[in-house]
Amino acid sequence: MLEQIFVTLAAVLTTASFIPQAVKVLQTKETEGLSATMYTMFTVGVGFWLLYGIVVGSWQIIIANTITLTLASIILFMKLRAVFGASPKP
Amino acid sequence: MLEQIFVTLAAVLTTASFIPQAVKVLQTKETEGLSATMYTMFTVGVGFWLLYGIVVGSWQIIIANTITLTLASIILFMKLRAVFGASPKP
Repeated sequence: MLEQIFVTLAAVLTTASFIPQAVKVLQTKETEGLSATMYTMFTVGVGFWLLYGIVVGSWQIIIANTITLTLASIILFMKLRAVFGASPKP
Repeated sequence: MLEQIFVTLAAVLTTASFIPQAVKVLQTKETEGLSATMYTMFTVGVGFWLLYGIVVGSWQIIIANTITLTLASIILFMKLRAVFGASPKP
């Protein structure tokens, strides 16, 4: 019973936590402090969690990691766009 | 076999991904783009993953989330210090 409460709180909080970061980066376009290496590694890692969920047939893992993968990809895209898209400062 | 490879890659990548972000924030002190809400929710969420690992007795979950909790706490501390510690701009 206790582990069910912990795993649900853990999954909901860690998944939902990327919503405010995605909203912030979309609104402010501020990516200076974000690590491109982190979001590249994290996005690939979450991709493997999703594959794991599919292989073991767990809809909870699939749903949670589909949401996280979407949010992390948005943040990664915004960061990479700022890094590579920005024209060199005069 | 396949799920073992996926879960290991997933855990290692998502855990290790916070190392470059922690190093970056410690080196640059640049926290503008980071979401305090994200890191608060995420750190609490990872805390629940750690509690879950302890309750079910999984040393893999305990080790991975102890590392992530330490790294996320460093990033959160640096962000909150910047938000609350910064003296108002003249």
